[in-house]
Amino acid sequence: MRKVAVIGIGQIEIKEHWDKSLKELAGEAIFAAVQDAGISKINGIFIGNMMSGSANKQQHLGAYIADWVGAKNIEAMRLESACSSGAAAFRAAVMAVASGELETVIAVGVEKMTDSPTAEMTASLATAADADWEIDVGISFVALNALVMQRYMFEYGWKHEDFAAFSINAHSNAIHNPYARFHSLLTNEKYLHSPMICEPINLMDSSPMGDGAAAAVLVPFEEHSGNQVYIVGSAAATDSIAVHDRQNPIWLHAAELSSKQAYSQAGISPEEIDVFEYHDAFTIMAALSLEACGFAEPGKAPKLALDEEINLKGNIPVACLGGLKARGHPVGATGMYQIVEVIQQLRGTAGENQIEKAKIGMAQSIGGSGSNIITHILRND
Amino acid sequence: MRKVAVIGIGQIEIKEHWDKSLKELAGEAIFAAVQDAGISKINGIFIGNMMSGSANKQQHLGAYIADWVGAKNIEAMRLESACSSGAAAFRAAVMAVASGELETVIAVGVEKMTDSPTAEMTASLATAADADWEIDVGISFVALNALVMQRYMFEYGWKHEDFAAFSINAHSNAIHNPYARFHSLLTNEKYLHSPMICEPINLMDSSPMGDGAAAAVLVPFEEHSGNQVYIVGSAAATDSIAVHDRQNPIWLHAAELSSKQAYSQAGISPEEIDVFEYHDAFTIMAALSLEACGFAEPGKAPKLALDEEINLKGNIPVACLGGLKARGHPVGATGMYQIVEVIQQLRGTAGENQIEKAKIGMAQSIGGSGSNIITHILRND
Repeated sequence: MRKVAVIGIGQIEIKEHWDKSLKELAGEAIFAAVQDAGISKINGIFIGNMMSGSANKQQHLGAYIADWVGAKNIEAMRLESACSSGAAAFRAAVMAVASGELETVIAVGVEKMTDSPTAEMTASLATAADADWEIDVGISFVALNALVMQRYMFEYGWKHEDFAAFSINAHSNAIHNPYARFHSLLTNEKYLHSPMICEPINLMDSSPMGDGAAAAVLVPFEEHSGNQVYIVGSAAATDSIAVHDRQNPIWLHAAELSSKQAYSQAGISPEEIDVFEYHDAFTIMAALSLEACGFAEPGKAPKLALDEEINLKGNIPVACLGGLKARGHPVGATGMYQIVEVIQQLRGTAGENQIEKAKIGMAQSIGGSGSNIITHILRND
Repeated sequence: MRKVAVIGIGQIEIKEHWDKSLKELAGEAIFAAVQDAGISKINGIFIGNMMSGSANKQQHLGAYIADWVGAKNIEAMRLESACSSGAAAFRAAVMAVASGELETVIAVGVEKMTDSPTAEMTASLATAADADWEIDVGISFVALNALVMQRYMFEYGWKHEDFAAFSINAHSNAIHNPYARFHSLLTNEKYLHSPMICEPINLMDSSPMGDGAAAAVLVPFEEHSGNQVYIVGSAAATDSIAVHDRQNPIWLHAAELSSKQAYSQAGISPEEIDVFEYHDAFTIMAALSLEACGFAEPGKAPKLALDEEINLKGNIPVACLGGLKARGHPVGATGMYQIVEVIQQLRGTAGENQIEKAKIGMAQSIGGSGSNIITHILRND
C-alpha cells in the first residue's frame, strides 16, 4: 500500500450563494486546490454530496463536475454517507491513490442548500436518519439530537448553560476565517437568550446550513519532498442508523472505533493530536466526540470546554477555524472543510488561528446521528 | 497493489417487490453472497444506489444496510453515478481491497423503484442527465436516447426494425434465468407492433424498471486456491453529461476509454472476451457499446446482431442471462447484476445459458446517456 500525501487545498466562503450553481461552487474549490498544488493534470474526482438529488434536481455529480472543470473523460463518482459524505469522498480518494489505481486525485465536498424551501431541506436532511423507525413516526433530525442531549444532561447532571462554551469557542475562532459563515462573537448572554428550537437545543447549539465546497489534491507520498502533509490514519465505522437501537445512546461508538483504528494506524495516542476538527453539528455532538475519541472521560466533555482546554491555546484545540457551528455546515462539503482546515494548521498557514508547532491533526466527520463516522489523521514533519 | 478475487455472489429476482423494503432486498442479496463465499465476517460494504433519497426517502444507505445485515460497526458507504452506481460500488470495493485498507468486502447494488409514482420515477431518473441544459428545457431521459438513436439511423442508414435482434436475443436468454424480470420470448412481429414511447424508441427497445439487488464478496486473490474468479481490469471514464456537448453524439467515448484501459490492464484484445454483459438500457445503447468496445466497426453493430453473432453461440455473446432488456434494470443494482452474471459464466454455473469454455468476461455499466462508463474484466483459469 502506497502512502498518500495532500499537495493542494481549496475552499470557498460558506454563505448563501444565490448567484452560483452547484457545479460552480465545486469548480471554484477544485480550481483553488489544483492551483495550490501547482499541477496541470488530474485523473480522478471523488465527490462528497448528500442532497443534490432533491435540492438541485441533479445527481450523477461525477460526470457533471468533471465535465464542468474541464476534466472530461477522467474517472469521477459521488460518495454519500449523509453528513459525512465529504469525508467519505476523501476516504475513497485515499484508497484510490493507495491502491495504485490512480495517481492524482481530487476529493471535493459540495452542497448547495439555499435553492430549496426550508421544509424541503428538513425533509432531505431527515433522509440521514431511519426512514422507517425514526422519521415516519414524526421525529426530525434536530429532535433526535435533542433527545440525546436531554439524556446526557440527565445522566451526568449538566445544565443547558454548560454547553455554551463549545459554541463560544467556535464563534471566536471563526472571526479570522474568511471562508466562515459567521464572523460574530458569541457571548454567554446571547447563547442563553437564543431561541429554542427543540428543547434543550437552542439556535446557538446548532450549526447553520449554507452553500459551500472544499477540495484537496491527493498524490502518492514522496520521501524528502519538502513541506508535504501526508495521511497516517484513515478509518470509518458505522453504528445502528436509529439512535434507539444503540445500547448507549449517549456514546458515539462509531467515533470510538474509527478514532482508535486511526490512532493505531498512526502509531499515536490521543495526547499527540495537536489539532482536532470535530463534527459539532450540535453542541451535544461536540461533547460526545471529545469523549469517544479519548479526550475526556464519559460525561466530562463540558468541563473540558468550560476549562478552556478546547480553545486555541488549550490542550486539545477544536473547531480552530470555526467548526460546524460558526464556519458553517454545508452538509456534504463539511468533511472536506475539516480536512482542508487541518492541513492549514499543519502547514502553518492558519494565520491568527495558528496552533503553535502543530504537527499532527485529526478530522472526524459524523454521518446521521452518529451512525457513520469517518476519521483521518494527517501529519507534517 | 494486491490482486482482488470474488469468492461469493448473490442476487434476487427482479420484479415488483411490494412486500419488501429497500434494506430487505439488499440484505437478501448480501446474505446469498456471504453464504456462497462461506465466510462469517466482512469488514466493509460498498453500496450502489441511485434514487433511494427520492424513491424511499432514505439516504445514508451505508449505516442503514450494514446495521440491517448484522454488520453494525463496519465501514460502509454509498456510491452514486446514476445508472452505473452498482459498477461504481464494485470499483470502490476493488480499490478498498487492492489498497490493503480492507480484507473482506461486500459490493452490493440495490434499487427499489415500485414504491414511487411513475411521474416521480421519471423525474428521479432525469437527475442522471444535465439538469440545467437538458432536463429544464423539457427533455426526458428516454427522449435523449431517442435523439441519439434517430441520429444513428440517419448517419448509417439503419431502419428501426434492424434493432429488433438485440431485444430478441435478450428475451431469449432470460427464459432460463430465474432472477430475470421477463420470461417471455420476443418475436420480430411483437417488436414491430409494440407501443411507441418516443420515436424511434418503442417499448421493446427499452429495458424495464424493477426492484432488485445483487452482491459480491471481494477478497485478496490467493494463488492456487482453486476455482476463483479474479479481476484483471477495472477502469472508469466520463464524458460530458449533456449529449449535445459531445463531438460525436453517436459514439460512446467513455466506453472506448474505459474498455481500452481495462483491456490494457488485462493484457488482452477484445477478441479474447468470451462473454460481455453490456448496458442495453435501450437498443441504441447496445449498438453503441459494441462499437465503442471494439466488437464492431462504427455503424456496424446492428449487423452483428442480425448475423446472430451476439447470441449465446455467436462470436461475442451479450446479455447472456437477459441483459437490462429482459433480466431487468433496477438502476443502481444493474451494475452488480452484470458482475454476478459474468461470474456465473466464468464459474460454469450459468445452466442452459452457459457459454462453453468461458474464461474471460467483461461487464460494462453506463451512467446517464453515456457520461460515466465503468468497465470490469474478470478471469477464471
